[in-house]
Amino acid sequence: MRISGRTATFCSVNKKMRDRSYSSSGEEEPLIRNQNKIISYGAQENCPSGGSTSINADPVILASSESQLPKGKYVLETVEHGSLNVISAKFESLDYDICENHLLLEEERTKGYKFIVKKNFARWFIFLLIGMLTALIACVIDITIEELSHIKYKSLKNYVDRCISENCLYIPYLIWVISNMIPVAIGSLLVAYVEPIAAGSGIPQVKCYLNGVKMPRVVRIKTLVVKVIGVISSVVGGLAVGKEGPMIHSGAVVAAGISQGKSSTFRRDLRIFKYFREDHEKRDFVSGGAAAGVAAAFGAPVGGVLFSLEEGASFWNQSLTWRIFFASIISTFTLNVVLSSYHGHPGDLSYAGLLNFGKFENISYDFFELPIFVIMGAIGGLLGSLFNHINYKLTVFRMRNIHARWMKVMEAVMVAAFSATLGFGMMYFLNDCKPLGQDPTSNPIQMYCGDGEYNAVAAIWFQTPEASVRSLFHDPPGSHKAVSVVVFFIFYFLLSCWTYGLSVSSGLFIPSLLTGAAWGRLVGSGMASILPSSGWVDPGKYALVGAAAQLGGVVRMTISLTVILIEATGNITFGLPLMLTLIMAKWTGDFFNEGIYDIHIQLSGVPLLPWEPPPLSYNMYASEVMSHPVVTLNTVESVRRIVHVLKSETFNGFPVVDPQGDVKMCQTFRGMILRSQLIVLLKNKIFNESAEIWNCKQPSIKMFRDEYPRYLTIQEVDVTEEEMKFTVDLRPFMNPSPYTVQHSASLPRVFRLFRALGLRHLAVVNDTNEVTGIVTRKDLARYRVWRHRGRMGLEHLAISEKI
Amino acid sequence: MRISGRTATFCSVNKKMRDRSYSSSGEEEPLIRNQNKIISYGAQENCPSGGSTSINADPVILASSESQLPKGKYVLETVEHGSLNVISAKFESLDYDICENHLLLEEERTKGYKFIVKKNFARWFIFLLIGMLTALIACVIDITIEELSHIKYKSLKNYVDRCISENCLYIPYLIWVISNMIPVAIGSLLVAYVEPIAAGSGIPQVKCYLNGVKMPRVVRIKTLVVKVIGVISSVVGGLAVGKEGPMIHSGAVVAAGISQGKSSTFRRDLRIFKYFREDHEKRDFVSGGAAAGVAAAFGAPVGGVLFSLEEGASFWNQSLTWRIFFASIISTFTLNVVLSSYHGHPGDLSYAGLLNFGKFENISYDFFELPIFVIMGAIGGLLGSLFNHINYKLTVFRMRNIHARWMKVMEAVMVAAFSATLGFGMMYFLNDCKPLGQDPTSNPIQMYCGDGEYNAVAAIWFQTPEASVRSLFHDPPGSHKAVSVVVFFIFYFLLSCWTYGLSVSSGLFIPSLLTGAAWGRLVGSGMASILPSSGWVDPGKYALVGAAAQLGGVVRMTISLTVILIEATGNITFGLPLMLTLIMAKWTGDFFNEGIYDIHIQLSGVPLLPWEPPPLSYNMYASEVMSHPVVTLNTVESVRRIVHVLKSETFNGFPVVDPQGDVKMCQTFRGMILRSQLIVLLKNKIFNESAEIWNCKQPSIKMFRDEYPRYLTIQEVDVTEEEMKFTVDLRPFMNPSPYTVQHSASLPRVFRLFRALGLRHLAVVNDTNEVTGIVTRKDLARYRVWRHRGRMGLEHLAISEKI
Repeated sequence: MRISGRTATFCSVNKKMRDRSYSSSGEEEPLIRNQNKIISYGAQENCPSGGSTSINADPVILASSESQLPKGKYVLETVEHGSLNVISAKFESLDYDICENHLLLEEERTKGYKFIVKKNFARWFIFLLIGMLTALIACVIDITIEELSHIKYKSLKNYVDRCISENCLYIPYLIWVISNMIPVAIGSLLVAYVEPIAAGSGIPQVKCYLNGVKMPRVVRIKTLVVKVIGVISSVVGGLAVGKEGPMIHSGAVVAAGISQGKSSTFRRDLRIFKYFREDHEKRDFVSGGAAAGVAAAFGAPVGGVLFSLEEGASFWNQSLTWRIFFASIISTFTLNVVLSSYHGHPGDLSYAGLLNFGKFENISYDFFELPIFVIMGAIGGLLGSLFNHINYKLTVFRMRNIHARWMKVMEAVMVAAFSATLGFGMMYFLNDCKPLGQDPTSNPIQMYCGDGEYNAVAAIWFQTPEASVRSLFHDPPGSHKAVSVVVFFIFYFLLSCWTYGLSVSSGLFIPSLLTGAAWGRLVGSGMASILPSSGWVDPGKYALVGAAAQLGGVVRMTISLTVILIEATGNITFGLPLMLTLIMAKWTGDFFNEGIYDIHIQLSGVPLLPWEPPPLSYNMYASEVMSHPVVTLNTVESVRRIVHVLKSETFNGFPVVDPQGDVKMCQTFRGMILRSQLIVLLKNKIFNESAEIWNCKQPSIKMFRDEYPRYLTIQEVDVTEEEMKFTVDLRPFMNPSPYTVQHSASLPRVFRLFRALGLRHLAVVNDTNEVTGIVTRKDLARYRVWRHRGRMGLEHLAISEKI
Repeated sequence: MRISGRTATFCSVNKKMRDRSYSSSGEEEPLIRNQNKIISYGAQENCPSGGSTSINADPVILASSESQLPKGKYVLETVEHGSLNVISAKFESLDYDICENHLLLEEERTKGYKFIVKKNFARWFIFLLIGMLTALIACVIDITIEELSHIKYKSLKNYVDRCISENCLYIPYLIWVISNMIPVAIGSLLVAYVEPIAAGSGIPQVKCYLNGVKMPRVVRIKTLVVKVIGVISSVVGGLAVGKEGPMIHSGAVVAAGISQGKSSTFRRDLRIFKYFREDHEKRDFVSGGAAAGVAAAFGAPVGGVLFSLEEGASFWNQSLTWRIFFASIISTFTLNVVLSSYHGHPGDLSYAGLLNFGKFENISYDFFELPIFVIMGAIGGLLGSLFNHINYKLTVFRMRNIHARWMKVMEAVMVAAFSATLGFGMMYFLNDCKPLGQDPTSNPIQMYCGDGEYNAVAAIWFQTPEASVRSLFHDPPGSHKAVSVVVFFIFYFLLSCWTYGLSVSSGLFIPSLLTGAAWGRLVGSGMASILPSSGWVDPGKYALVGAAAQLGGVVRMTISLTVILIEATGNITFGLPLMLTLIMAKWTGDFFNEGIYDIHIQLSGVPLLPWEPPPLSYNMYASEVMSHPVVTLNTVESVRRIVHVLKSETFNGFPVVDPQGDVKMCQTFRGMILRSQLIVLLKNKIFNESAEIWNCKQPSIKMFRDEYPRYLTIQEVDVTEEEMKFTVDLRPFMNPSPYTVQHSASLPRVFRLFRALGLRHLAVVNDTNEVTGIVTRKDLARYRVWRHRGRMGLEHLAISEKI
């Protein structure tokens, strides 16, 4: 047995890596996959530079990156559009670690336990507000959509009814097209020109935020306004979209806004809840907001809590979870009260969520149906991965060719027009007439059907997609001709695939559910025709399973989605079939590609940290993972050096070390100071030499909180030439005992520490406690496990500015 | 502003604490409360020794403790029975940190990704087995209880019916008493003499296990057998107990047993799943087993997952949670299939859980009822804290006076006899006659009622407590006279309080629910008589709210309990009222004392770690918290020293340091080795001098796994005098880069690291990376926050051998 040759290295900056029994992972070829030609790894000497891309290790291009990239790690200057294995250098991280400097101790000492109790009460109150406000926003969205859609489809029906006899069907068609294009144009213009981050469902963005990535502008009030108007116009504009995803994002914005007691958009500071102005607290509230959003969207408070945990929390905190659950319950309740009142039966409380699946009264299943559900899950997984693949290709196409804002708007408007054309064409060509009586729609239109009949295809198209889902779940057997369901399924699948990624606010849940409900209903009808004597085949049940399978295949969420569906159907006994379906859909889908949200996250290069460290990586060490060399500051540092460092470096955290005295002294690691703290110190001129000035008004933690979260840049801070000669004692302000790891710690160990405690900077020290490097989120996110067609391995991502 | 005088301490064992701006917490009186006279803290000089207890800091009494207690921390030699603020030194911890030694790297390298995939499949398979087996055990318990109870109450009814006319009522009374006493005697004898840890519900034990405390014998198969027989005999014996808590414990045992592939009780090793033989993996499976137990007990798969998270997980792991959910769903499903078949309608799947609340069909609530629910929650909290207080006093009485096993059995049998007497007395004296027709029981007895009537009190007593809960939930309004419900409530409250803590297997859920349902029904009937015209007062609904309030007031669980009740009622819309009630019950109860499980955990002195570090403790440092001095081993250590250290010290983890060369060398911290590893090394004679012998069969990780979890003691290992002169190189076996903290790290920082990563030993190092102390679970559990009557503070617990 070989033993690693560790010896006591005595007070020397030990930059050599440890002698190891096993070669560095970079050379172990089965572990590494080089999927994309432009990605490379290994030592700099054997760096390939293939194709049209040039690899550049110049640190200059690191501007605005917080990652301290060593020259040995490759940084791409140009990235092919559509790369899934490049991390953007643009994204900063949130910091969940608490800076335990003297100012915090000071506050603790002066405020005492009463302050703790007060803060706790404030937290509960904020969660109450978050739940209520999220629900109210959901109500506004829901009621507006319902009213506008009602007007739109009512008048369209009247035109159709009149024009059938007068042979002027092009008039309702044109009206339909225009009434689709105008709202979509409005929504799309807002998104493209005012707040591009409001595009899409917002779930990927919220997921990244909760994971610890600072997504710019994602929790601003402006984003919320654009999102709300955007989602209303998309749904009213007849796109194949839902309003559920945007609700989750809205909840997150509401939470961030309320908890901070101020708004940058409105430039108002209410001067309340100041003690919650830190990343740590804000994240907690945002996870509550997201949960409240889920609760409002699906009437699923437990599902909301699980969503929030599944996407966000790296550790389980009992009291936080309880508050999140409270916000979710309040949100469901508020929505229920408001919507019940709006629909005219206030005491009834029967509108649990925006998405109402309707009641599945006597849904039950037999043993032998379980294999059928499993097969349907596999079909859902296949269709979902196909959907994701097409959408991925389409998104890459968009990234390459559709840059200008007006082009994005044009595309959205075009899809809106196409949606109307498709619907009209299907109504016109598929003559699916059903007798009136059990009308699945409030606007049954006759079109070319006989008297006392209605057009079943029109019934699906002449309503919001959500109402169509409900129809497919609950229409009595035989409501639709098989051929019309098949045609509808194919076209809607492609249409929704085209729609997701447009520059509009849009959710993916409803289109997926609708597509799945369509083919699920087909399966149900097929079963019924094969086994006509059995009474148990309810097409609605199969529509539900199909919907779950399709959605599961597309988004690949697991626990939270199961619980959301259980709660949305209001039926607990159907949990096992739903879960089996979802597991199968996920496994099948994962065989081919990733979930749609993950694909979009990877396309934008967000350094998302997975749940667990990559397997088989115990032979990678912190010294390889870390970024080095590091720029350190002395415990008492000159202003000139601080300004210089802040101007020349882009790092956000600086290790503070003992000044290097005679040659034998170690530069022992003393603490960590953040760029933002240095900026505040410079701005407030907390210099040693001017102590008598600032000493009368003690610098307190308030000084730092007031600036949160948007600090000045170093260029905006004014430092005179005389002040340049002064010094700053960093010790009272730095974090005096941050977590550190030894340079010989393994990657999983570093990963667990970083992930579990939500760190932003993790200093790597040598045997004598000198900093040899820093591990940041991007250093860890670079190691990603791939799983594809039953195989797995580790890939090294590149980091680039250009994504 | 004062600044702590941190200077570079250069390679000297720095045992002095850092100069600090604030005094050590030990002196800050508002933070500290000395609730119990025998507890003391602070420096040794001013140590009080009051009453009959003497305080002894002699390290000798630390025998078998893993905590390395310094002389400055007080250790009690005798403890008054009933102390809530003493930690037992007996409990060891589980270790969730992975020892990344060379053996693990070796295994990784040889096995590769296929092994990872195989392990993953094995995990899923084990969770499937856990779910199924847990459910089957639940079925056995349920069916046995049902059959035996049916026989018992049927024959009792016949005797009563006959004896009413023949005036021989003493005969059924005696039969009742005897048929109570015999089963209880059997169960109690088993528990008292065979496996005492099978007493009670097992929830506290499972909670402690999941928290990371090594509870001796808690997951043994012997415990499971005693638990199963015990709970059947308690319920059949007519005690005021339920079978739900024991189900959770059973699930945990099943999980531990299956996942390890061997049983110590049966001395069988199936030689499968060997790679799961470590604390880390075992804990994961046990949390799945507990969840499956909840799922089987209450038909609440989501509640099971949340229970497991609430009680156990310190961090959220997505894939683990998914597997836990899978086990829960499988468990519910299996139970459902088996019980449905047993009840003769196999396809129906209508028996979701053991505890069947019956269907709440049209349960709805109005706005103005919410305040009533809140008040009921407060009442529940009051009654719950009263229950806990009485039970606490009773338990202390038992600890002082009932030591002998036969006395424990006697007490249990006495309670059984008393239960029968109470029931008989109530039936006899309360003449509550109701017309037959909507019989709430399968054995209606007439007693002194007229023809066509039945005795409503007998209806409650002549069935299992669970069936009584169902009766109170679903009996039509007016089924019971108010006075009989009042009498029943009072006596049952006291009876269940007396019963919990007996030496029998017994759950607390059902008695609490039954008590609560009784007073809740009273509230409902009261409301109905005040507002006779309103149609909305359904006594069953109020019984449900009362049951939730009472249970919440006693156990103080929050999220999981809400979800369990939602799932058990099968009604999602009633979530908000239940949650409001439970929150209110918890808040009211917490005002007075802790939950019953926590009281019992504290009484047994388990060092449970709370969720969060104590507030306002940033001014406490690792150097105060840690145990020191530490016993270290050199990287290459002589066998003699190892044997000596293992024999003379009781610590379980030893820091490995560089040997002290000339006077200037630091004893740099190199790794951590466990007692168990040293034992295995000695047993297998892995000495440097005999390398040629053991080198042919490479020592592998298997060698260590084979011994898990019960290692030899040092006395059992045979080392010859010649071998004593040999040396062992510890480096390939030690954990080479364990987590460390600086001695200047604050208590919350140490706590978060320790808790989030599930550590067992955390080395505290100084500036030059020399170990100055070790933090173990007990060092952290010593700092506990107390909340009482709206005030809060920090208390320091003592550690004792005598508890």
